[in-house]
Amino acid sequence: MKGFGTIIHGQTVGFLEKNIPEPGPFEALMEPVVIAPCTSDVHIAFEQGHNPARNNRILGHESVGRIVKLGEGCTEYKVGDVVVVPCTTPNWRTLEVQDGAFQHSGGLCQGMRIGTSQDGVMAEYYLVNDVEMNTARIPEGVSLESALMVSDMMTTGFHGVELADVQFGDSVVVIGTGPVGLMSIAAAKLRGAGRIIAVGSRPKCVELAYYYGANEVVNYKEGDIVEQIMALTGGRKVDRTVIAGGGTEQLPIAYRLTRPAGGIGDLVAADTPPRLDTDTAAFCRFVAHHKFSGGLCPGGRRRAERLLDLIKYGRVDPSLMLTHKFNGLESCPDAFELMHKKPQELVKPIVYMNV
Amino acid sequence: MKGFGTIIHGQTVGFLEKNIPEPGPFEALMEPVVIAPCTSDVHIAFEQGHNPARNNRILGHESVGRIVKLGEGCTEYKVGDVVVVPCTTPNWRTLEVQDGAFQHSGGLCQGMRIGTSQDGVMAEYYLVNDVEMNTARIPEGVSLESALMVSDMMTTGFHGVELADVQFGDSVVVIGTGPVGLMSIAAAKLRGAGRIIAVGSRPKCVELAYYYGANEVVNYKEGDIVEQIMALTGGRKVDRTVIAGGGTEQLPIAYRLTRPAGGIGDLVAADTPPRLDTDTAAFCRFVAHHKFSGGLCPGGRRRAERLLDLIKYGRVDPSLMLTHKFNGLESCPDAFELMHKKPQELVKPIVYMNV
Amino acid sequence: MKGFGTIIHGQTVGFLEKNIPEPGPFEALMEPVVIAPCTSDVHIAFEQGHNPARNNRILGHESVGRIVKLGEGCTEYKVGDVVVVPCTTPNWRTLEVQDGAFQHSGGLCQGMRIGTSQDGVMAEYYLVNDVEMNTARIPEGVSLESALMVSDMMTTGFHGVELADVQFGDSVVVIGTGPVGLMSIAAAKLRGAGRIIAVGSRPKCVELAYYYGANEVVNYKEGDIVEQIMALTGGRKVDRTVIAGGGTEQLPIAYRLTRPAGGIGDLVAADTPPRLDTDTAAFCRFVAHHKFSGGLCPGGRRRAERLLDLIKYGRVDPSLMLTHKFNGLESCPDAFELMHKKPQELVKPIVYMNV
Amino acid sequence: MKGFGTIIHGQTVGFLEKNIPEPGPFEALMEPVVIAPCTSDVHIAFEQGHNPARNNRILGHESVGRIVKLGEGCTEYKVGDVVVVPCTTPNWRTLEVQDGAFQHSGGLCQGMRIGTSQDGVMAEYYLVNDVEMNTARIPEGVSLESALMVSDMMTTGFHGVELADVQFGDSVVVIGTGPVGLMSIAAAKLRGAGRIIAVGSRPKCVELAYYYGANEVVNYKEGDIVEQIMALTGGRKVDRTVIAGGGTEQLPIAYRLTRPAGGIGDLVAADTPPRLDTDTAAFCRFVAHHKFSGGLCPGGRRRAERLLDLIKYGRVDPSLMLTHKFNGLESCPDAFELMHKKPQELVKPIVYMNV
Repeated sequence: MKGFGTIIHGQTVGFLEKNIPEPGPFEALMEPVVIAPCTSDVHIAFEQGHNPARNNRILGHESVGRIVKLGEGCTEYKVGDVVVVPCTTPNWRTLEVQDGAFQHSGGLCQGMRIGTSQDGVMAEYYLVNDVEMNTARIPEGVSLESALMVSDMMTTGFHGVELADVQFGDSVVVIGTGPVGLMSIAAAKLRGAGRIIAVGSRPKCVELAYYYGANEVVNYKEGDIVEQIMALTGGRKVDRTVIAGGGTEQLPIAYRLTRPAGGIGDLVAADTPPRLDTDTAAFCRFVAHHKFSGGLCPGGRRRAERLLDLIKYGRVDPSLMLTHKFNGLESCPDAFELMHKKPQELVKPIVYMNV
Repeated sequence: MKGFGTIIHGQTVGFLEKNIPEPGPFEALMEPVVIAPCTSDVHIAFEQGHNPARNNRILGHESVGRIVKLGEGCTEYKVGDVVVVPCTTPNWRTLEVQDGAFQHSGGLCQGMRIGTSQDGVMAEYYLVNDVEMNTARIPEGVSLESALMVSDMMTTGFHGVELADVQFGDSVVVIGTGPVGLMSIAAAKLRGAGRIIAVGSRPKCVELAYYYGANEVVNYKEGDIVEQIMALTGGRKVDRTVIAGGGTEQLPIAYRLTRPAGGIGDLVAADTPPRLDTDTAAFCRFVAHHKFSGGLCPGGRRRAERLLDLIKYGRVDPSLMLTHKFNGLESCPDAFELMHKKPQELVKPIVYMNV
Repeated sequence: MKGFGTIIHGQTVGFLEKNIPEPGPFEALMEPVVIAPCTSDVHIAFEQGHNPARNNRILGHESVGRIVKLGEGCTEYKVGDVVVVPCTTPNWRTLEVQDGAFQHSGGLCQGMRIGTSQDGVMAEYYLVNDVEMNTARIPEGVSLESALMVSDMMTTGFHGVELADVQFGDSVVVIGTGPVGLMSIAAAKLRGAGRIIAVGSRPKCVELAYYYGANEVVNYKEGDIVEQIMALTGGRKVDRTVIAGGGTEQLPIAYRLTRPAGGIGDLVAADTPPRLDTDTAAFCRFVAHHKFSGGLCPGGRRRAERLLDLIKYGRVDPSLMLTHKFNGLESCPDAFELMHKKPQELVKPIVYMNV
Repeated sequence: MKGFGTIIHGQTVGFLEKNIPEPGPFEALMEPVVIAPCTSDVHIAFEQGHNPARNNRILGHESVGRIVKLGEGCTEYKVGDVVVVPCTTPNWRTLEVQDGAFQHSGGLCQGMRIGTSQDGVMAEYYLVNDVEMNTARIPEGVSLESALMVSDMMTTGFHGVELADVQFGDSVVVIGTGPVGLMSIAAAKLRGAGRIIAVGSRPKCVELAYYYGANEVVNYKEGDIVEQIMALTGGRKVDRTVIAGGGTEQLPIAYRLTRPAGGIGDLVAADTPPRLDTDTAAFCRFVAHHKFSGGLCPGGRRRAERLLDLIKYGRVDPSLMLTHKFNGLESCPDAFELMHKKPQELVKPIVYMNV
């Protein structure tokens, strides 16, 4: 079968030819129905030097898929069923699950397997481990496009708000207005935030930031983020900050923005060292009763079912983020390249594969 | 000055004549701008037998007030300022505050003072203790009517959802569609609930239940609540239940409705004994990892500020509940009587006092 | 093979003859090394009327076992390994696990299988499901006797303290000084409780209550529990209450004992209806910001490993509770009968099976 | 009156002559009974450049004091009463209290006033604000020496364990074996930790680390902390880490030591910039579901009462840390100098002032 991925990790991407995999116990072989390229695909393909284990690896981890073949032990689904496949598909029979860290089942961040440690969704077929525990049917009334956004953008963006522990009426800053940031804004509103201040710059993203619930959007290109926000609040720190964009340089910014006993949720996974040495004062606040929590997005069927219910019951419509549309496996290189270049008008692309 | 309240507790209500009180340190003398009679006023007037300490007591605890005179130590407000007065006005210099139970500062439920242990708002004037810690200015863009609903209905209804600990996508039952129940529905939606099932019967309340976020409303007059809800969910228990109406007979119902490890938030304050002996099976579930939490509504200036921000930033509009309007202190007996009779079309009344 | 259990549920117990079961995938066939009869065994045998599904069912759920045969997929253990078998052995591939209710995987309380829905440990052999996820090796320095107490008494007693959410310096009441109550006392001390008041009467249990950390023991036979405890505290309610004995009549007692915003942990699983109608005032306190949580004991390998570490590192020695010793499967009827009669000097028996 | 403190902040310390202060409402004038110099006193005197507001400021914040004169509004104490004075004495009538950040009432870390923004305890007399809300009587059976350790060492050390959220059987690393670290070790044991690994080097401190509950002590002078600890655990990360010593360079160490979804409690308040740029990999783990919380020690009368109860009921004896004894105000310069030099055999000094 054909797939698009890394030929030599860190250097070249392109089409690959591989054998169709065989589903083991509790696994399913899927064909992609719709998929969404992700900025992480670019990171996974090109960052962290050259990792030989990632040579000849098909990319892509956001998908709605159709079940083609079921492995031993699967009783709930039948061939032809269409399900949301979350980007995190933990092995539930691991001790990390008993420690409340199912995202890290089998090792740090190893709950995210598809498109990293196993072949991804930019292919004719792909495997999903423990399909009954890790995927969810699409409820009536939920579009394929919205369902696709559950796979990564919603669960990740919403997790930032969970980590920051937003409470009724809290003031919240969301740093970043890419698709994850937009979902953090939607989540902050849905979690009962009062004032929501977003940090972003691209016009289409800013427009959607307001749509999803931001009351003000600060442009980091127009001055220091902290100064701009303190000007809006009259110098009062906010209750919660979600870091949903940028790199580790956002950490001291988040500390400077957030009040004592406030919460900071961090979704930044960048490998670059944090540039903290420039800001002594911010780190003195490390003792200021901040709760800082970082996290990889939760997976699991119940998580996906809950997020799908939010769409079904009209609480949020993530499909408005899909600004760019592609058709077929052949278009994957173009869609990938789009994520690499990130033009001004881009929010999130979708590729219709086998609808 | 004149006020409306209990002449003999448990027996008669009517107009009283009392001296205008003098504000002590940190206190303020207020005149009511708008007030809202509450079902609790009827309970406070007539229930719990005859409590001589509640003779000659002015009723009413929901108000927006105008500051007439400030006691010693008040520096932040000036005479003429209009503020929301939450129904719970704790004494912040008590050990209960250090134990996280500020609603109970000075004794069980003693954080609620106005209209119970001190004279209430159905009067020409009333006192507010620790006015700078307990009241909040009304932000631009928030109507008097909406601000008034912060005093009790919003803080109470929202607290039910906090106690039940609603999470993203959770299925939630709200028992009761009176004004507190309606605010629990709005709060469940704002806290990220997926499916919301309300239990109520009066047509105007049912209409508003849908407006505030309920997806289905079950009429308890048309059959067993649990059976009706299980029919909707296909027998699946819900994640959270908020008891915002009825009496203690709702407790075993909530236990039967809620899944293991789910949450139950209880706002029922009734003095009648629970009728639990009829349902053994429900109580076996007492061990079923339910988290059951009851609570009097939080007070304090920051709480009120946060709820006002929810209105200011367009997250919720509680003013739609104000179905009945009255004018002046003279109308208080009629407004009180309305709460007593609870006609079908009633949700919540407002009395315009000194606008 | 031979086992001791219910011949006719609800009526007769005795020895049974059954086939040796075959371990399925991830399962292990065990022979018991040491086991402990439990009061629950008596309840399981004789209560809840006649449940035909429990006819011909071998009893017993507390054990240390030796692996005799391993099912497909087991890679970590080898035949001959000796492990603690917790009484709760969840199926980790269920949606309840994703909802944080692994004790209830597969249905309410269905995480507890051994000796209830499958044959128990009072036998020549017994099965353990998902043996690598559900059992733990015994660390060096931990006796068989102490390890055996991890299976149920420690995890249950400690869970009561987790549910009550004891904090540093809190005053704590533990109702009950049977082995579960004694472990709740030890857990309260280990969780940082200040004053610990126990409620019990049998002399040996009272002696051990002091040993495990109680500062005072109140005898419920000598007067009203609440009055006796309020006499000790000068009328001050305690921060936390653990219900580790008695029936549902303890619920309103716990509400009367505990301060607003305090916590109540309930380990009572009795099927009898609560006698609440006699105490109206206690239930008004249902709104007094109590957090009430009930719970079946957690299982899982990591839980067992953590409790074993508490023994290994000298934090607690549960083996002192083992007051009565038996030898061999033939002694099981006597040990069972002992739990039925509960003589004054009994705390907990152990049966040495295949040491 | 005479006191010892900063003459010119950042440069010189010595004896000062000041007027005896007059207690305002709710305040008390105290004479010190016993006091303890603290490493923080040295920081407060000499760090953060030259702060003119700290010229002529009496140092010292740990004390047991005797009430000499009571301000208006004080009804509970009488002149001559001896009380523990916590180093954090918040103003309870501030909005920060309503936000759960009473340590920061009036501004970041402004809940700690004595010896920083107001004159300290190394004096003939000193003031305590809101004495009834902020101090606690010493229960029968608690020595002056132990009571003194409640003021800062116990509340701070115990808070590290609260922030790291230690659970039953957790493995815990405590970085630092100074008096705060020793109290974190004692607290970890009292919170139910399993294995406790401490990091320290001075012999007397190491001896006490074992006494208070450490199972192993790693010497940071003998190699990389992480490597040494991973050698002990077989490469397994620990559940919780408390940073109770060193500077901000401990942050990435804590991240490297702690498992995903584990907790890190940070008590480091150093003003030096963190040296994070040397360890990229550690910060990638910023997303590894760690919960990181920093915190200034809690104050308040209930906190002190709870810690005193831990001593009263025999849970911990902090007085063993008092290795060096001084007598009288005249000895304060020597005691202060001792904290500056920190000789090998030092753990914590006490000064007997007016016993």
